[in-house]
Amino acid sequence: PPSPFQAIQLKVQKDEEFACWKRLKTANTQLKIIMEVSSLLAGIGIVAMVELPVGQLEQYPEILIVGFASCTTLLVVVHTLALLIGVCILPHVSSIAKMDEMEFAERSPHDSLRFHINIAWTLSTVIGVGLFLIELLFICWMQFLKTSPVASWIATSILVPSIMLFILFVICFYRKLVKAKTSSTIQDLDHVEVVAAS
Amino acid sequence: PPSPFQAIQLKVQKDEEFACWKRLKTANTQLKIIMEVSSLLAGIGIVAMVELPVGQLEQYPEILIVGFASCTTLLVVVHTLALLIGVCILPHVSSIAKMDEMEFAERSPHDSLRFHINIAWTLSTVIGVGLFLIELLFICWMQFLKTSPVASWIATSILVPSIMLFILFVICFYRKLVKAKTSSTIQDLDHVEVVAAS
Amino acid sequence: PPSPFQAIQLKVQKDEEFACWKRLKTANTQLKIIMEVSSLLAGIGIVAMVELPVGQLEQYPEILIVGFASCTTLLVVVHTLALLIGVCILPHVSSIAKMDEMEFAERSPHDSLRFHINIAWTLSTVIGVGLFLIELLFICWMQFLKTSPVASWIATSILVPSIMLFILFVICFYRKLVKAKTSSTIQDLDHVEVVAAS
Amino acid sequence: PPSPFQAIQLKVQKDEEFACWKRLKTANTQLKIIMEVSSLLAGIGIVAMVELPVGQLEQYPEILIVGFASCTTLLVVVHTLALLIGVCILPHVSSIAKMDEMEFAERSPHDSLRFHINIAWTLSTVIGVGLFLIELLFICWMQFLKTSPVASWIATSILVPSIMLFILFVICFYRKLVKAKTSSTIQDLDHVEVVAAS
Amino acid sequence: PPSPFQAIQLKVQKDEEFACWKRLKTANTQLKIIMEVSSLLAGIGIVAMVELPVGQLEQYPEILIVGFASCTTLLVVVHTLALLIGVCILPHVSSIAKMDEMEFAERSPHDSLRFHINIAWTLSTVIGVGLFLIELLFICWMQFLKTSPVASWIATSILVPSIMLFILFVICFYRKLVKAKTSSTIQDLDHVEVVAAS
Amino acid sequence: PPSPFQAIQLKVQKDEEFACWKRLKTANTQLKIIMEVSSLLAGIGIVAMVELPVGQLEQYPEILIVGFASCTTLLVVVHTLALLIGVCILPHVSSIAKMDEMEFAERSPHDSLRFHINIAWTLSTVIGVGLFLIELLFICWMQFLKTSPVASWIATSILVPSIMLFILFVICFYRKLVKAKTSSTIQDLDHVEVVAAS
Repeated sequence: PPSPFQAIQLKVQKDEEFACWKRLKTANTQLKIIMEVSSLLAGIGIVAMVELPVGQLEQYPEILIVGFASCTTLLVVVHTLALLIGVCILPHVSSIAKMDEMEFAERSPHDSLRFHINIAWTLSTVIGVGLFLIELLFICWMQFLKTSPVASWIATSILVPSIMLFILFVICFYRKLVKAKTSSTIQDLDHVEVVAAS
Repeated sequence: PPSPFQAIQLKVQKDEEFACWKRLKTANTQLKIIMEVSSLLAGIGIVAMVELPVGQLEQYPEILIVGFASCTTLLVVVHTLALLIGVCILPHVSSIAKMDEMEFAERSPHDSLRFHINIAWTLSTVIGVGLFLIELLFICWMQFLKTSPVASWIATSILVPSIMLFILFVICFYRKLVKAKTSSTIQDLDHVEVVAAS
Repeated sequence: PPSPFQAIQLKVQKDEEFACWKRLKTANTQLKIIMEVSSLLAGIGIVAMVELPVGQLEQYPEILIVGFASCTTLLVVVHTLALLIGVCILPHVSSIAKMDEMEFAERSPHDSLRFHINIAWTLSTVIGVGLFLIELLFICWMQFLKTSPVASWIATSILVPSIMLFILFVICFYRKLVKAKTSSTIQDLDHVEVVAAS
Repeated sequence: PPSPFQAIQLKVQKDEEFACWKRLKTANTQLKIIMEVSSLLAGIGIVAMVELPVGQLEQYPEILIVGFASCTTLLVVVHTLALLIGVCILPHVSSIAKMDEMEFAERSPHDSLRFHINIAWTLSTVIGVGLFLIELLFICWMQFLKTSPVASWIATSILVPSIMLFILFVICFYRKLVKAKTSSTIQDLDHVEVVAAS
Repeated sequence: PPSPFQAIQLKVQKDEEFACWKRLKTANTQLKIIMEVSSLLAGIGIVAMVELPVGQLEQYPEILIVGFASCTTLLVVVHTLALLIGVCILPHVSSIAKMDEMEFAERSPHDSLRFHINIAWTLSTVIGVGLFLIELLFICWMQFLKTSPVASWIATSILVPSIMLFILFVICFYRKLVKAKTSSTIQDLDHVEVVAAS
Repeated sequence: PPSPFQAIQLKVQKDEEFACWKRLKTANTQLKIIMEVSSLLAGIGIVAMVELPVGQLEQYPEILIVGFASCTTLLVVVHTLALLIGVCILPHVSSIAKMDEMEFAERSPHDSLRFHINIAWTLSTVIGVGLFLIELLFICWMQFLKTSPVASWIATSILVPSIMLFILFVICFYRKLVKAKTSSTIQDLDHVEVVAAS
């Protein structure tokens, strides 16, 4: 029978393998979500740009047109870049994630490419969705400015707190996630101590 | 052979593991449905906003325009926030749900993130679908106000009871679900007693 | 070796488990079809409502506009409610259906929620598809009334028998399904008798 | 060891089971294809009807409008009925097809519902696709009649042989399929004879 | 232990089984791709035909209209026929491909239907994609003829070499595929010789 | 027990098999992504071309029209060629990748077709996405040139650095990938040395 120390060593090794596997699967799902969300929102941005009633633009103050143009361009660019990064990494991660064998997880490039995945995720989810809400603000102003400025102001009063709520959620969520990771590590350490003590 | 008490203990532990696994799978499906439903309904909201015949808006009373603008904005914002929350949580839940091994279920963050999942679910399903029905009411009024107010009133008389039915269903369903959970717990306890008595 | 009576008991129990599992899988597929069909048809209804050439509505008799408005509203409401019910039940049914182990089938809420599933199915398939055919009738009348009433009448003469055929099929199909279930029960009973006689 | 006769009996029984399973899987795929193809083609029919430039219809001869109206209505009705039949049968067939155990195949209603599946398949694939080609003919005539009748005639001279080719293929394919089934039965019988002779 | 000759016989048989299985899986994927690509490209053809600005057609030379009409009709017809053939064969091939047991591969009709699958594949991929590039050429000419013939000529100078490149690739690819098959057969024969020699 | 040398030989062989399998899976995912991304971006290109307000083109300088026409044509052609190559190779790679048995990986043509896969990948991801960003630049200029050149210039000042960032990322990513491959080979060699030394 293995000695208690060897048992702990084995357990720690198995836990590490599991954690590596979990990171691989998480990265795989993140990359798939980036592809889906970014192509959807980039598509909406393109449609909003193309379906613009060009002939009526002269009625609007230039600041509004400039804001709309830069926001739409940024929205499409951000999602295109996120899509590109996701598309480049996905085949290399997915090829190992589909094998359903934990031992191969270490050979996947998802840890060395973690920085790239994080950038794509931030571009697509955090910046991209935030820009989408700002884009909505510009569309509201362009649609209702002439006929009912009150409607524009009410839409603004709904959107501004929403964007703040959005930023708040993103901050809270990542703080919670970090805490969850730390607590899981502490739990693991406690577990090790208990095993070591027995 | 294990003593009856140990058998009960083992059964209770296995049941708990099963319940944890079931909650994980339910959360996973809920998050996928949130992504699907919210992107569909947010898309419809955006299309309704962009395809608005801006030139004809002057004919409408301002209260209608303001109502339409706030309802559409709220619809898109609610679904965007639900989408964001769902998208942030899904990779962490899905990575464990895909492993198809019950023992890992406890390590998933779906219980500590239950509050976030419930908010996303309520935003997407309860508030989001309700807003969609109200949006339909505004579209009916904007399309038929000038030519046939009777059509608008009939559409309203169909939609108002539907929204009430919708609220009623949501209340009934959650009451039923809570009852089902309680009765399943009671059944489990009965089961434990029977095993204990034998 | 088990006595013949025990063997029958075991067989009956296994059959019941199989029937429960089959009902679970059927409910799961039904809920997925509801989501797909209802979001498609509700989308078509919304598009038909939004793309209405509002400016030309004055040329039509009011009865046609009122009929179109109520039919479209009903179509969208019916499918939205079906979607809502389907979306609320699916995660609880799907979480167990995905486990691929028959013994868990009894713990799924698909039997206690059968009534809700049947309502959603009837709303989405029977009432929803019927309303879609009536909607088609209204669209035909609105598109061809001015230029060619003959075309409207021919479209009507195609659609009315189709709607009758549709009702006939629904009645026949459910009668056949009920008969199939009864005959399968009778077959099972015969089987039991044969086993019992031996 | 089993006698040669028993071996043949066993083989025949296993072959029958396999054939039943194959029919089940084929029916399952057919129903899924019906859902996909019919919702696509019905959608195209609806779009062609709704996007009709109503104001310009007066320029066309009435026979063209009547033909277009009846063809589009028929196209949508045929695919809606196929969709309805497919949607009603699919959950009952799919629930057993997903179990991946051949022994359950006999309990599926796909044999007693074969007639309904064949009707849905014929409506969706044979009649539905044929109507789609005729619909294309009407669209060509309506788009090019005023500006270039030559284009209309050339499109017709492409479409008429295509529709004949289409009918020819359908006839040939079903004759080939029937022959394949017969030859497979004959092969099986030969196999039985060979086993019996040894 | 089996004699060397028996071992070779066994290996050859297993290789044949594997080759048959591979052909089955390849046919299955080809049929799925035909369905996807053909419905996409046929849809684009229909949209290009329906969204034609009919009122402005009189400005174009008749040869352009006739070419556009015949190309679009051909594009839709070719993809519709490919879709029909694919849809008819897929259920019979897919039902066996999904069983994941090599021994059944021989019973699938994918070898006797190889001719049909090849026709559908050629229609969808080779002729269909080629026609799509020619369609693009006609769209360019119709969009830019009046305002900027230079743009039309530049688009033509991009498209003509592309179509040649496309034809070249198709020829090269099939030559390479045939060579790969031959070399794999030769490799197999070498392998047999080596085994036989030992 | 095998000698240390045989153990290394076995390990090297198993590693090679794993690497071959990984390349097969990666190629399979790459081909699927090419199909998805290319059909999306080619579709956007076609829509941008067809929805062009032809009547207003005379207001633009010819250089803009020529640039837009060539960029759109190139975008569609590049993605169509990538789609064609992907579609031709996918069935032959996918048929083996789906078998989930490593030993067959060597028989797949994904290594002999690596050159074609790389061309399709470069066309679809690198050149195709780059052209998409340039297309966005042309759309911005065409939409805002008349009403607000400032908006066009700001959109340009966002897009030009983005395209540079895009090129930078592509270069960095491939350099990193090559380095990862080399380091993994070195690690393997180290591993072999360690095993050999023991």
